[in-house]
Amino acid sequence: MHFTPTNIEDLPTPCCLIDKAKMQRNIARLSAHIGNLQCTLRPHVKTHKSIEVTQTIIDAGNVKGITVSTLKEADYFFKHGMDDILYAVGITPNKIAHVAQLIQQGCDLTVVIDNEDMLSLIFEKMAQHNCVFKVIIELDTDGHRSGVNPHTDTLISIAKHISNSAHAKFEGVMTHAGESYACFTEKAKQDMAAQERDLTLHAVKRLFEEGIHCNTVSIGSTPTAFAVDQLDGITEVRAGVYVFFDLVMAGLGVCDVDDIAMSVLGTVIGHQKDKGWVITDAGWMAMSRDRGTADHVQDYGYGLVAPSSSHNTRYIMSDANQEHGIITAASNASPETPSESQSKSTDGIFTHFPAAKAVEILPNHACATAAQYSHYYVVENGVAVDKWHSVTGW
Amino acid sequence: MHFTPTNIEDLPTPCCLIDKAKMQRNIARLSAHIGNLQCTLRPHVKTHKSIEVTQTIIDAGNVKGITVSTLKEADYFFKHGMDDILYAVGITPNKIAHVAQLIQQGCDLTVVIDNEDMLSLIFEKMAQHNCVFKVIIELDTDGHRSGVNPHTDTLISIAKHISNSAHAKFEGVMTHAGESYACFTEKAKQDMAAQERDLTLHAVKRLFEEGIHCNTVSIGSTPTAFAVDQLDGITEVRAGVYVFFDLVMAGLGVCDVDDIAMSVLGTVIGHQKDKGWVITDAGWMAMSRDRGTADHVQDYGYGLVAPSSSHNTRYIMSDANQEHGIITAASNASPETPSESQSKSTDGIFTHFPAAKAVEILPNHACATAAQYSHYYVVENGVAVDKWHSVTGW
Repeated sequence: MHFTPTNIEDLPTPCCLIDKAKMQRNIARLSAHIGNLQCTLRPHVKTHKSIEVTQTIIDAGNVKGITVSTLKEADYFFKHGMDDILYAVGITPNKIAHVAQLIQQGCDLTVVIDNEDMLSLIFEKMAQHNCVFKVIIELDTDGHRSGVNPHTDTLISIAKHISNSAHAKFEGVMTHAGESYACFTEKAKQDMAAQERDLTLHAVKRLFEEGIHCNTVSIGSTPTAFAVDQLDGITEVRAGVYVFFDLVMAGLGVCDVDDIAMSVLGTVIGHQKDKGWVITDAGWMAMSRDRGTADHVQDYGYGLVAPSSSHNTRYIMSDANQEHGIITAASNASPETPSESQSKSTDGIFTHFPAAKAVEILPNHACATAAQYSHYYVVENGVAVDKWHSVTGW
Repeated sequence: MHFTPTNIEDLPTPCCLIDKAKMQRNIARLSAHIGNLQCTLRPHVKTHKSIEVTQTIIDAGNVKGITVSTLKEADYFFKHGMDDILYAVGITPNKIAHVAQLIQQGCDLTVVIDNEDMLSLIFEKMAQHNCVFKVIIELDTDGHRSGVNPHTDTLISIAKHISNSAHAKFEGVMTHAGESYACFTEKAKQDMAAQERDLTLHAVKRLFEEGIHCNTVSIGSTPTAFAVDQLDGITEVRAGVYVFFDLVMAGLGVCDVDDIAMSVLGTVIGHQKDKGWVITDAGWMAMSRDRGTADHVQDYGYGLVAPSSSHNTRYIMSDANQEHGIITAASNASPETPSESQSKSTDGIFTHFPAAKAVEILPNHACATAAQYSHYYVVENGVAVDKWHSVTGW
């Protein structure tokens, strides 16, 4: 569909912007790193849920299939030509009919399991469909969330059950070191990356000793994907948020604030002069309720106003209502109590943000923010040059 | 569209459920209260963004028009026959063309302003369209967010500018006592309701003394709407979340947990037995990132598993990833550190929540949760009897 180039000041607000050059730079950075380690990427498209972003990742090279977080994403991306898909959330019986439909249409879809009790329940549903389901076992390599402990008998037992099933094909193992989001030093990230990889390879070795081969050995999170320095035995790395980055990733030192390729555009609707507040039409619905930097050294509230040469003060969205955001000069006060977060340096805030001014705000967590939108405006040199659609919900 | 009645255990997950009987009871409660006070409601449809829910509110009586938080909501509800709409977020120049389009199609749409500098900017845009724009002034009656101080000269000055404009028609005043969300006692809610009303009436009186008549005098928030005991001089009350209620409202004592008419349905995907965790496919995308009970006496994490006669223990969603929720037995530990929130009483958790079990979770904040969905399943006696669509985004 043709899109007429539009100055960003003329866009409807709130809306979500992608800085195309920064996004391409971020994508190229991880593609090159994983390529240098002789491995391939399976990007997690849950961050953006957009075929155009995914195509940009593929164009950068070293990509083998995609990872999705919902079957609606699987439907959307399969419809747009992606036929090698890992659905990376533990499968349940009520989703097997949907999975079967995708497989029967030609989608090479793999599902995930980590629970022995679930096996018989899903096998029963699988038996109702005339296809073979590829199943991967999720490993817990960091105590963060789901997954089988790689040292346990359960790992072997689940793998054997899958291998012996008439309806399932054992595909391999996967893990996600979500604890890397608490790794603030380079050393911590490197150690977590090594742990994620080595515990996964340990599981592969134990399965091999039982005569079970892992066709897929899949690891990854954005912090560990950049920190890992050796990938022998790993077949693919998964990461999602690196395409945009965000304030959480900047806080972890994975990127600079200047690398953040996604922002929310709001418009100033008013001022509360006695409090030092600028009010915009970008509230928590536009940013999401994510407060991912709350426990960082730099707490940005609901987001950071994009740094600009026109002001030295750091401005944040210190509080938000559904469709109202409160911008204040950053201070050390709690962002939950914006009335106290005004500082002496706020004198210029109303000059910098007059009524009707467009304000760009960087998100804490790009995945959460992106999911609030059904489309993005793609920006080059301050002009929206395209509008990309995405899929939301389930 | 015909919907085949479906047992809730057979619904795709995650999904959003509306308990129809509870919703009707909640709606009837406020309609009756406002009717008893000889006033009318202008319900805020931002909570549900659904025409079917709105129709249920209208059917209960005492309704005059609706309130919206986005122009996309205005488009949707106008298309579905609602032609008296207050867009309750401060208007900006980049939205005037959209507003004009709705007015020219026959929508009686009113916009809001609280900023004197904005006036000339919007008048300039209004002059480009052949219609008259109804404008209401937002008052700040609680220091919570936007609005003009009712005691100031600015109030009179803005009203005069609007009255004297060729393009705008001065309609009246509105306010929203958002600070009522911090009123935990009956006395505090009653005082806030009186303050919201009395400061608004003070503004009306001051304008009257300047020869300016307020056709509309609009106040409201869910806690103050129920707490107010006299509405002479007020033409309409706005409230939104009361149709569903949520854990925040229960925490404020505006409703009981048993009144909450909205829930999220998830499915158990696995167990982390050594930690006492049950993992479901309803993560923060399904619940929203809202942590509205974080500063309440009862902190429910991301949500409360709907109480059931089959278990006495209170279970909460103590942590979440994008599409994974972690259910634990509630304790006094911080929900941000779920690994420490397991208690001795969790022994039964895996019995109560076996693999593949459907789990209903009550939300902190119904507006935030509802907006994650494009449709709701309407439940009567444990069976989904209808599917209602809603509008999201901008």
